[in-house]
Amino acid sequence: MKMKKLNKILPALILTSISTVAMANSKVEKREVPTPVGISSELANIIENRVMPPHVPVPKNTQAWLEAQVIADQPAIETAKEVVERLNISYEAKQYAGVDTFFVTPETIAPEYANKWLIHIHGGAFVLGGGEAALREASWVADGIGAKVISIDYSKPPLHPYPAAIDDVVAVWKALTKTQSAESTAIFGTSAGGNITLATALKLQELGLPTPGALFVGTPAVDLKETSDSWHTLKGLDPLGEREGALSAAFELYAGGEKLDNPLISPVYADIKTFPPTIFISGTRDLLLSDTVRMHRKLRAADVDTQLHVYDGQAHADYMIGSVTEMPESEDALKEIGLFFNKYIN
Amino acid sequence: MKMKKLNKILPALILTSISTVAMANSKVEKREVPTPVGISSELANIIENRVMPPHVPVPKNTQAWLEAQVIADQPAIETAKEVVERLNISYEAKQYAGVDTFFVTPETIAPEYANKWLIHIHGGAFVLGGGEAALREASWVADGIGAKVISIDYSKPPLHPYPAAIDDVVAVWKALTKTQSAESTAIFGTSAGGNITLATALKLQELGLPTPGALFVGTPAVDLKETSDSWHTLKGLDPLGEREGALSAAFELYAGGEKLDNPLISPVYADIKTFPPTIFISGTRDLLLSDTVRMHRKLRAADVDTQLHVYDGQAHADYMIGSVTEMPESEDALKEIGLFFNKYIN
Repeated sequence: MKMKKLNKILPALILTSISTVAMANSKVEKREVPTPVGISSELANIIENRVMPPHVPVPKNTQAWLEAQVIADQPAIETAKEVVERLNISYEAKQYAGVDTFFVTPETIAPEYANKWLIHIHGGAFVLGGGEAALREASWVADGIGAKVISIDYSKPPLHPYPAAIDDVVAVWKALTKTQSAESTAIFGTSAGGNITLATALKLQELGLPTPGALFVGTPAVDLKETSDSWHTLKGLDPLGEREGALSAAFELYAGGEKLDNPLISPVYADIKTFPPTIFISGTRDLLLSDTVRMHRKLRAADVDTQLHVYDGQAHADYMIGSVTEMPESEDALKEIGLFFNKYIN
Repeated sequence: MKMKKLNKILPALILTSISTVAMANSKVEKREVPTPVGISSELANIIENRVMPPHVPVPKNTQAWLEAQVIADQPAIETAKEVVERLNISYEAKQYAGVDTFFVTPETIAPEYANKWLIHIHGGAFVLGGGEAALREASWVADGIGAKVISIDYSKPPLHPYPAAIDDVVAVWKALTKTQSAESTAIFGTSAGGNITLATALKLQELGLPTPGALFVGTPAVDLKETSDSWHTLKGLDPLGEREGALSAAFELYAGGEKLDNPLISPVYADIKTFPPTIFISGTRDLLLSDTVRMHRKLRAADVDTQLHVYDGQAHADYMIGSVTEMPESEDALKEIGLFFNKYIN
């Protein structure tokens, strides 16, 4: 069937018939988008009061990156400390397998997690979110499912580009799996943390080491080379902002001269035959929705046990809002993570 | 934590810190969106040559609706006949349980489907897609998974509004489940067909009848009352066009004066305690993505066995392109539907 004819009949199936307006590039017109109808009042309130970040200049050199890290991480560290207090989390900063970590303990430990630790890899575009900022997601999951968590304060650019972060996680993994079985352990992370979670699983396979029983991969950056579609289609709807500029520069800085389509840097380019069961979470306004579903399909193509959960109206990592304030969708996400882990590691 | 402070720290966690630009309504700027990077060349070719439908005037009376149906369905019927030929489908139009149906038989019947029929409910905004146009999706699934399919040419507006379509499906269901077990039978449909698939399951529960072992619900319209978010966020990216105008009018026509939030008209408003296992398929450019994920969450809230598959770059029902031309993503969707049915009904 000829393309021209094909494209005439496709929309016709839905409602009507013939048109002549070609759209080589799809056109998005200027408009205002109302608050989503299908979300909780808590999330609606946040979206309606949301602020879009200002344009961030790209730091010009190592010193400027280091200074930007300190400035950007400061409010995230404050928030994480509030989360720790709000959820009555106990934590201890310590070196483990030669790596900086936080050992995070929730107020109540569920029986199935009494004798194990999960591993958390924080987000922050590969360059941010370190130090105590990492405690936010670690605490949210630890409290939400009642598990003890080792949150890894992995080595970061500008001083430590790829593969330093993955090496740190692998070191912790090797040490931890001396005392608990790999198949009863999960690794989890969001955004850059989701990327490093996936990359670590690939690296463990490469090394011939046992892999985790399950992964939770939240809205991961899986393609640092190409700009996935939702970066374009959802622009303006997600306070993550834009990929051009500081974010792209952070990706380059992380790669440290390595090719961006190296599967350990962009896991969507991996040749996957087997992989740990993985639960993905994203949102319909998430700039990384395309990255998320592309990776989901990549795993499904290899018949990996997966789950995909997409929350209506949510931007990048919004499911984690529940760490700082009550939100039903956050409770729901924790329920899904908990059920998935129960199925595969408990 | 105060909302203002909360909204300051949320984006900060990702990349940077403080901003003051509020976005009560989210603003989308005019732009051109390139072809998605994460899709097959076949789908890319279709998207690049895609035509957006012209504005369709709302038919003014019953006669005008009937005329519009004939005009709009004509190309869809032609396409469906080409699909039938292309896939070597055999079909027979017949009355079954007093309802117009097509009995659709693929060239090769898989052993697990030798002794059963699946039920198909066509799409078309509740008013279109009837007659032989229904054979397109029925043939695609029949051929793709090797199953015999009864496609229901259900009663439609303007002459037969709600609940005529559901009544027709229930009549077929009652007759069919005299000779094959409900739990080994699946019902499936896309768009309005997804809506009626869901509504039929709800109606069967209401009637105390056995429900299907599985449902495939493709990009369903589940909220005819409110306009879900992706209708706004993805406007201009999906040849389905817009909800305002003819489509909204079709929804009203279908409801026939019944309230639009009646769960049998808008299944997302159902009070769900149990429900058949359901596989959902949508795309990141699908105007009904929000409807799809809202219904997915609705079922998950009741711990229903579900799967959600979202294809990158796909608009409304694009997964079905494989009926008219080769497309890897269509093969993949058929694989997922087949695996899901194998798990729950075979």
